[in-house]
Amino acid sequence: MRPGASFHQMWRELLPVGRSAATGGYRRHAWTGADAECRAWFREQAEARGLAYETDRNGNQWAWLDGSAGAAGDAVVTGSHLDSVPDGGAFDGPLGVVSAFAALDELHGRGVRPDRPLAVVNFADEEGARFGLACVGSRLAAGQLTAGQARELRDDDGVPLPRAMERAGHDPDAIGPDPERLARIGAFVELHIEQGRDLAVRDAPSGGNAVGVASAIWPHGRWRFDFHGEANHAGTTRLEDRRDPMLTYANTVLAARKKARLAGALATFGKVAVEPNGVNAIASLVRGWLDSRAPDEETLAAVVAEIERSAAERGARDGVRVDVTRESATPVVEFAHGLRDRIAARLGGAPVLPTGAGHDAGILSAEVPTAMLFVRNPTGVSHSPAESAEEDDCVAGVRALADVLEDLACP
Amino acid sequence: MRPGASFHQMWRELLPVGRSAATGGYRRHAWTGADAECRAWFREQAEARGLAYETDRNGNQWAWLDGSAGAAGDAVVTGSHLDSVPDGGAFDGPLGVVSAFAALDELHGRGVRPDRPLAVVNFADEEGARFGLACVGSRLAAGQLTAGQARELRDDDGVPLPRAMERAGHDPDAIGPDPERLARIGAFVELHIEQGRDLAVRDAPSGGNAVGVASAIWPHGRWRFDFHGEANHAGTTRLEDRRDPMLTYANTVLAARKKARLAGALATFGKVAVEPNGVNAIASLVRGWLDSRAPDEETLAAVVAEIERSAAERGARDGVRVDVTRESATPVVEFAHGLRDRIAARLGGAPVLPTGAGHDAGILSAEVPTAMLFVRNPTGVSHSPAESAEEDDCVAGVRALADVLEDLACP
Repeated sequence: MRPGASFHQMWRELLPVGRSAATGGYRRHAWTGADAECRAWFREQAEARGLAYETDRNGNQWAWLDGSAGAAGDAVVTGSHLDSVPDGGAFDGPLGVVSAFAALDELHGRGVRPDRPLAVVNFADEEGARFGLACVGSRLAAGQLTAGQARELRDDDGVPLPRAMERAGHDPDAIGPDPERLARIGAFVELHIEQGRDLAVRDAPSGGNAVGVASAIWPHGRWRFDFHGEANHAGTTRLEDRRDPMLTYANTVLAARKKARLAGALATFGKVAVEPNGVNAIASLVRGWLDSRAPDEETLAAVVAEIERSAAERGARDGVRVDVTRESATPVVEFAHGLRDRIAARLGGAPVLPTGAGHDAGILSAEVPTAMLFVRNPTGVSHSPAESAEEDDCVAGVRALADVLEDLACP
Repeated sequence: MRPGASFHQMWRELLPVGRSAATGGYRRHAWTGADAECRAWFREQAEARGLAYETDRNGNQWAWLDGSAGAAGDAVVTGSHLDSVPDGGAFDGPLGVVSAFAALDELHGRGVRPDRPLAVVNFADEEGARFGLACVGSRLAAGQLTAGQARELRDDDGVPLPRAMERAGHDPDAIGPDPERLARIGAFVELHIEQGRDLAVRDAPSGGNAVGVASAIWPHGRWRFDFHGEANHAGTTRLEDRRDPMLTYANTVLAARKKARLAGALATFGKVAVEPNGVNAIASLVRGWLDSRAPDEETLAAVVAEIERSAAERGARDGVRVDVTRESATPVVEFAHGLRDRIAARLGGAPVLPTGAGHDAGILSAEVPTAMLFVRNPTGVSHSPAESAEEDDCVAGVRALADVLEDLACP
């Protein structure tokens, strides 16, 4: 089967799963029904190709092309994730998993017989849309999140992660670090749609810019800002008697944008929860989540400190107490230079670019030589139903991934 | 039974109904289980006193002390509502209903036999917490909301009002204007906790300031601001490529406060809904509800127009489209001067004061001579679990209401 045909058939199968008729966006949150459908699809793809399927202790799915007994550090693994942000696009995650299977098909078509074990992986709960922490499956495997911490995670309805796993048929008792499995891996390559327009706006070299290679992931983190005011009647309370946390929140949103702009960083408030959230009630509590990223860790820390200071100052004026909790922090990731350069060379001098987005590849890079391929995104839009990539670019991504896997697995 | 004893017994019975253990606030939203408990309590109170109980076509509850055949325009009615805002206090609404029954007990204890029909009423869905429109029961009765408009109301889960009524055991087919019932009423007096500190900060005259009489209700309204931007990845989208509606919303919140302050009006954003509301997603839509009130209608219109203009200007900078929908508008209410002055005189020169809060009394005042009594609120806090009144002031309120009813019903 040609890579295009194999790719398109899988793509069409996945397309309707977890898609909202109202928004056109995906709601494939971890351990929900839509996620289970994606996971069943993954298993079917593995079994249809005669790959050895397994689910690891943390719920990550693996499909092994065996036939060769690999030593430790021998395996070449590719893949990504199948879950989505709320109303996300079709490409973020699934493009890497579908391309991984299609690349195996391409290698098969080329008659390539890898000397090393090859696997496709689907990491569980990459987006963190439901439990508020990204990359839970890979973090657990790499020991960057303890089982105890994971058991404390709850969704917005108060459902603990272990309960959600259990309901989805995964035993939560076994979650925890998985060093033996990671020790088998000699290289992990994650293909992903580019989130941004770096490839789209570059002058194309002779080979075109359909595919790029990642250099680094910016350090990033999530901070919860709790603005505590006093509920009161919106129609009767004099302005001077109010302690309205919505004002402090609003001022902090604008301050975050300004501080980030001045520092060449990113800062976003995209999630808010208000109590009591009534039209004629001054809020008692506004909870806003800050996502911030920067080229280096010093800049990130400075930007967040300035946003916190600005919130506290305005809070003092508004009679509002501001509590800030760091919910996650991911240090800068420099992908393995040797692997990166080898891949860029194999792809005929593909562009090398940084990204602000976190990925399972970023988590694994602390344990395993890791690389990423990016497929061009003409609008740069991501985490939205409008996220898109050209068909030809997707097929070019499959070919590039197959080239890289052939190079790594047939040394 | 002394008014204090009767009042306290009823108060204690109602206190636990619909109270959140987490916040201590009330969640007695219209046509929910907690509302049904309150309504059952009302019926029990009526029947325990031998009053003639009825539910009108719009779900408002009435308890008639008959024994005298009144002519049209003869009846004297008192009461308020039993539903609450989200996490509201115990007093807003229930104080007026409990005081109404307690005032009947007080009249009974005084041996007063009214010449005119007397009734206690509980208006349905005064707060509008669930369906977004306040005073639905009284608006329907007074013909200020048509049955067709009411049938379009939906709660946040998409449940239409008629469905919610039906589930709660009320036939929604009959909703609509109720002119014959209103024509029976010669005077409606609503007792309510003061929402503000006007009584608390005044110099007390000889009789004290436990109870005041309403002069007018400020005009007010609710506007929904829809800020339409573009969902995108918070970690990868350059600031200059964003169309982030959270920025426009934040700027509008601050502008609303400033415009209101300059005009001597009130403007509040207390309710927000965000899509997709993910930590690492730039919002595609921020929906904020503006509650605004002013001493007169020209000022109100000017303040809202300035907020709209400010939102549109900032939206143009942010690449965000702003749609504004007026969800409700209530003109200024001047309570009937004759009734007001008669009541103030009967109460020994009680303070006369305006309010910014809407009430069923404000709706009915277009059809019926209407008055309000306010009971002192030491902190002014309202629409919050911290809302409170002194016990002695509540009992003074019952006595004052009994005095007024005696004066009106025994001419």
